[in-house]
This record gives sequence, structure tokens and C-alpha cells, in this order.
Amino acid sequence: MYNQQAYALGSKRSTIREIFEYAKTRSAEIGAENVFDFSIGNPSVPAPKEVDECITRLLRETPSVALHGYTSAQGGQDVRAKIAENFSRRFGVPLTAEHLYMTCGAAASLTITLRALANDGDEFLVFTPYFPEYKVFVESVGAKFTAVACDKRTMLPDFQALERALNPQVKGIIVNSPNNPSGVVYGEKTLRALAELLRKKSAEYGKPIFWISDEPYRELIYDDYTAVGCPMGYYDDVIVCYSYSKSLSMPGERIGYIALSPSMKNVRELYASVCGAGRALGYVCAPALFQRVVAECDGLTAALDVYKRNRDLLYNALTEYGFTCVRPDGAFYLFMQSAETSATAFCNRAKLHELLFVPGDDFGCEGYVRIAYCVPTEKIERALPKFRALAKEYGLI
Amino acid sequence: MYNQQAYALGSKRSTIREIFEYAKTRSAEIGAENVFDFSIGNPSVPAPKEVDECITRLLRETPSVALHGYTSAQGGQDVRAKIAENFSRRFGVPLTAEHLYMTCGAAASLTITLRALANDGDEFLVFTPYFPEYKVFVESVGAKFTAVACDKRTMLPDFQALERALNPQVKGIIVNSPNNPSGVVYGEKTLRALAELLRKKSAEYGKPIFWISDEPYRELIYDDYTAVGCPMGYYDDVIVCYSYSKSLSMPGERIGYIALSPSMKNVRELYASVCGAGRALGYVCAPALFQRVVAECDGLTAALDVYKRNRDLLYNALTEYGFTCVRPDGAFYLFMQSAETSATAFCNRAKLHELLFVPGDDFGCEGYVRIAYCVPTEKIERALPKFRALAKEYGLI
Repeated sequence: MYNQQAYALGSKRSTIREIFEYAKTRSAEIGAENVFDFSIGNPSVPAPKEVDECITRLLRETPSVALHGYTSAQGGQDVRAKIAENFSRRFGVPLTAEHLYMTCGAAASLTITLRALANDGDEFLVFTPYFPEYKVFVESVGAKFTAVACDKRTMLPDFQALERALNPQVKGIIVNSPNNPSGVVYGEKTLRALAELLRKKSAEYGKPIFWISDEPYRELIYDDYTAVGCPMGYYDDVIVCYSYSKSLSMPGERIGYIALSPSMKNVRELYASVCGAGRALGYVCAPALFQRVVAECDGLTAALDVYKRNRDLLYNALTEYGFTCVRPDGAFYLFMQSAETSATAFCNRAKLHELLFVPGDDFGCEGYVRIAYCVPTEKIERALPKFRALAKEYGLI
Repeated sequence: MYNQQAYALGSKRSTIREIFEYAKTRSAEIGAENVFDFSIGNPSVPAPKEVDECITRLLRETPSVALHGYTSAQGGQDVRAKIAENFSRRFGVPLTAEHLYMTCGAAASLTITLRALANDGDEFLVFTPYFPEYKVFVESVGAKFTAVACDKRTMLPDFQALERALNPQVKGIIVNSPNNPSGVVYGEKTLRALAELLRKKSAEYGKPIFWISDEPYRELIYDDYTAVGCPMGYYDDVIVCYSYSKSLSMPGERIGYIALSPSMKNVRELYASVCGAGRALGYVCAPALFQRVVAECDGLTAALDVYKRNRDLLYNALTEYGFTCVRPDGAFYLFMQSAETSATAFCNRAKLHELLFVPGDDFGCEGYVRIAYCVPTEKIERALPKFRALAKEYGLI
């Protein structure tokens, strides 16, 4: 009676959400301080103080009708010009307001981009491990979703597997670095190799393969990867999908953007398609007040250094206890090998220690678990003895 | 290369937007005070002061992580409970938080609802004249869009035409009262007749026909229609799509809701489909800060009485000058007969008097123009001599 895909999506709770709900129930039973919930990627640090200051100033200085009124569908001209200017300066790409489209966050950036691109029979690739909603978004525009294996030793793309997966139906590839759930960051070598292969295959097929760069964690890089720059510096047909959710610690406000590479052929036509896709999906404009806020706060970040501290603490301890995982260089996730074949069984065992994290199966990798360490550091400190006990149970230590 | 529907939607500027852009250019040439732009439905009154006060208080009192963080996909539990309680009290319908889904405004309410309902081969009906985006939204979920003629004397539904249009493929009908562009409000008699016919046909087809009530103008009713109440009081399978854009004068902030009638069969299943549809379209949650704002300000309205004053002034003058239109009882539009066969030619003629309004063709009614009177009253006062001159040119006066 209802749309079958929508009903299936809405009636089956995601594993992440299920564990999150369990955490709430369990917290009521034994106290929140005794439950160690590493299930959800919800930022634990406040927005920079400039965000709230900016809102207060805007309320004082801007007439209500202008402040809370409609903006252009693609976002305010001033807002886009300001963000494009910062982007150009930072990444050395001549981006202008005409390449930027403001969105209601990263998910909207992706659904609008996919809708703007996809025609019947198109296929989109992602590398494992991947954010599970990619599958939902790709399939919801009627396109084929294909996961390409990564190199398990590094969690970086397996280029041989990619070459085998590429075919003339592939319209684009969703690339997510820093990665959710593995935390790996693609370095210059990886970006170059990816660009080269995509260029070769685009030429072979006589049509572009779009590189959709999903970058909600762009500002969460802990080591020396910041010089890597933007994929637009490596390849022409790049679409950056960005969100301020993590950089400014305000995921509930739903604000981000789509940026099209200025060196893309027919960039004006794709921009028109993005505008049309936003319209078809019911995105009239991105929230007006927060458009102005991010234009003013673009470049600032919340106090993200806590995540680096957490990363060091957790990664060092877990590997010391005998667990195996690739060292995350960004985002706030750690993708650890399960200590037994079934990741679900391992998660259930961890639950007995009040440690909550999610099996990697939904991320396209069996035998792994995702640990979201965007929690207060003291929580991690108190969780370590429990991880140690878990390692002992499995004879790792 | 790109999605054809998206490209077509994005590259063809809407007539309304084209006239709006012309107004900007013309204002630069002769001064904004000399251009009389009645093209766009952008509220001209500020948000009630409680909106900004509420934002300020929330910033002061709520920790950043809670205030700007993710809410549940369907909206905060407290927010939904508060709005449902108000709704129940006002309309006598036992609505709870479990029937409410917070959205990014009316367009999102509609696209999510349509996506939640539509399967292959489904058809949705609207009455002429209709908001042009309905066609975009219906076709974007792959369903068939059918416009049903209204009774031109009243701009109310023509029930014989509706009975002819109904068939087993019809999944729903989008009803928009107060209406954009005609301003008419459906009274009790119309709602009863519509409910009766839909009930009869639902029984005949052995499946529900959903009444999708698009109500962004619900609070903009000037006369004694307020007692009419909610369609849920007349029919079981009602889905209310609401937005605070007009009632609180903050269309840029994108906040509204979907409410499912509690008396609907399988209401939990439809609610799950709504959640799934929101997920598939990339709506992670409605903007968090404004969810709280509307929960606190629900029931308040901006100073909407200016629109009634404008309506009286404009309707009385235009009919005195010999123009013909049905008296609008709500919203802030007036749908006037064109003084010549081509509404576009009539609009161009009006342009010579610096009067800007849009042809009704896109609203599914040829031979009409839409005049949006959500402008300062003094602007209307100064426009009247120009309307008078236009009437004279056509020999109406």
C-alpha cells in the first residue's frame, strides 16, 4: 500500500540506532556513567563560541524579514561568495559562488548530487568500509550500488579491485576521506592513483566518471595530511559534498554545501541539474540563519583536539591489549578487527562489559567493529580496563 | 549526461522567478519605490518578537551539544509532544508525538509524504488552480500528476470533474486550502462533500485514497472560516503537511511537520514509511534549534492582519475598476481574470505601468493572473492608480 522501499527503510531500525536505544535503556538501569556507548558519531564538543555570538549579533542587527526570509534556492549570493573565496584561498582552486550550492547538510549534499547525476541504468561505486546510508541514497535514485573491496591491511582502496569494477555504466564513485568508519585518510599517492585510473577509464568510455568527495570529516585530521589538499587539485570531475556538522559541532542544524570543480566540462549544466535536483527533492533553500552563520564561521572549528587525544589513548591501549586495527588519522572512528568470526557475537560479548559498539557488517566489512570515540576523554579512560578484560577473555593478552 | 528531469527543472527558470529577477533589474533602473512587484509570496511582516527572544533564551540556557546536536530523525520527542498537544486541543483530534514528523518546511513535508506513499503506476490529483511545484513533486516520485478542473465561478472543487477523474490508480489528492493562488478557503460544505466522495470511492476500490492537506496558509484566514477545523475531522485518511513559514514569517528557516490522522488504518505503518522516505531523500532531521523555537512559538502568529487590510484594499479597488476575481478569504494571493485572452500579454501590458504579477498558466488556469499582496500596504495604495489606468486601457472603467 505504501512505498515499499520507504516502508522497509523506516520500519527496520538501523543496528547503530538499536544499540543507541539499548544504551539509553541500560543507562536508566545502571546509571549513564556505567555505560560505555561508542555506537554513535555525535560530536561531544560544543560549537565554537563564535557560532552563538554570531547568531546573537545577526538577531540584533538584521531585520527579521531579511534574516528569516527565503534565500535563493542555491543559497545567498553573499554566503556563497564568502565560502567560495575561503575555499579558493585554502585549496588553490578558483571556486566562485556559481560553483557552490548550499544544502541541508552532508546527506542532502549527497542525495541532491546523486539525483542530479543519475539516469536509468547508472551505477555508483564506493569503497568498503563505507557509511551505510550511501547504499540507501544510491538506491533511492534508482541507481545500482556496488561496493569495491579495500586493501584490508591499510583500509585504502584496492586499485585492482576498482579496475575490475569499473565499467561504462559507472557514473560516479563516492570517496570518503577521512573515512567513516575506518578513520583512514587518503594521502597524495592514493589520490593521484585514483585520479589517474579514473582519467584513463573516463577516456576509454568517452564519458566522465564523477568523483563524489564526501567530506564531513575534512577538518578532523590529526597528523600531517592537511597538505594533501582537495581532490579538485587532482582530477577535473570532482563534486565535493561538505557539511559543517562536525567541524562546527552542530549536526542538528543541517547545513553544508555542494562544490563543483571549476575545471569540470559543462560545469554550468551540472550546476543547473543540482538546482533542479534540490527542487525535485523539496529543498527550497538551506536554513537561512545558519547560512549566514557558516559564512561568518567558515574556517573556524570546534575544539577538535579532544578527538586526537581520544584517538591516541584508545588506539595505543587497544593495540597494546592485542587487538588489531589500522591507526585512524582522522574522523572519530576506529575500525577494529573482531576477536571472533562473528562481529555481532563479539559486540554482544563486549556488551557484558557495558562496552557498546557496532558490528562492521553494515559498513560492508564482516569481522570488524566500529568504535566511535567522540566521547569525553574520561569515559575512554574508564573504559580501558573493560577493553583489557575483554582482550583477556579472548586470550589476546 | 546528467539526470534529464533535474537538468530540465534547474535550467528552465520559473516564470515567477523570472519576473522577480526583472523586478530587481527594473528597481535598479528606476528605483525600487517605483516598481510594484506582486510576483512572489514572500512574507512582508517580521516574525513575532517571541521567535528571536526564544532563540536568545535557548542559546543562553541550553548546552551547545544538546541545542545544536542531532535530534531523532522524526524530530525531538518533547517538540512533537508539545505540538501534538496544541493540535489536539485546537482541532479536537487525539494527535500524539507518534503521529507527527518534523520536516524542513512544506515542500519537504510534501516530497516526503509523496515518497512514502507512491508505488509504480500511482496517480495523484490536484484541483486547479494549483501551486506549480505540486507537479514537480509528484512527477519526481515517478507518479502521474492529474489536474482536476475547479468551478471557475467559485474556484472551489468541481465534484463532477473529480468523480470523473477518480480511478483505482489514484493514491491521493493534494488539497490546498487556503489556496495558493486563488486565496479561496474550503468551507464545511466543501470538506464534507469531498470526504463523502473520497469515502465512497475508497470503498468502491477497496483501498484508501489519501487526502494530503497542504496547509502553509492555515493561519491566514480573514473571515469566519476558522471554525471549519481540520480535514481530520471529516475523513480518516488525512495527512496534514504544515509549515511555519507563513504563520511565523520565517520561510527561510525551513521548518514544518507532517501529521497523520490517528484514525487512519495502519497509521504506524504509514509513519514508518514517512520515516523511511525522509531518510531516502537525505533529511536527517529538521533543523534542531528551530524545532525548539516552533515548539515554543506554536500557536503564535506574526502580525498577519496587514494581509487582511491589503486584501480589502486591493479586492475592493480591482472589482470597482471592473476587474473580475473571486474574493480571497485567506492566504495572500488574488487570482484575477486576465483582461485579454493571453494572460502573458496582459502581464506585459501591466509591466508598462510597472505592475508586476504572474500569468496563471503555470497554476493550471489560462486566462488568469496571480497577484501576491504580501507587500507593505502603502505599496498597494500607490499601485491603485496604476491598476485604474490599466483598467481604463482595456475599457473596463
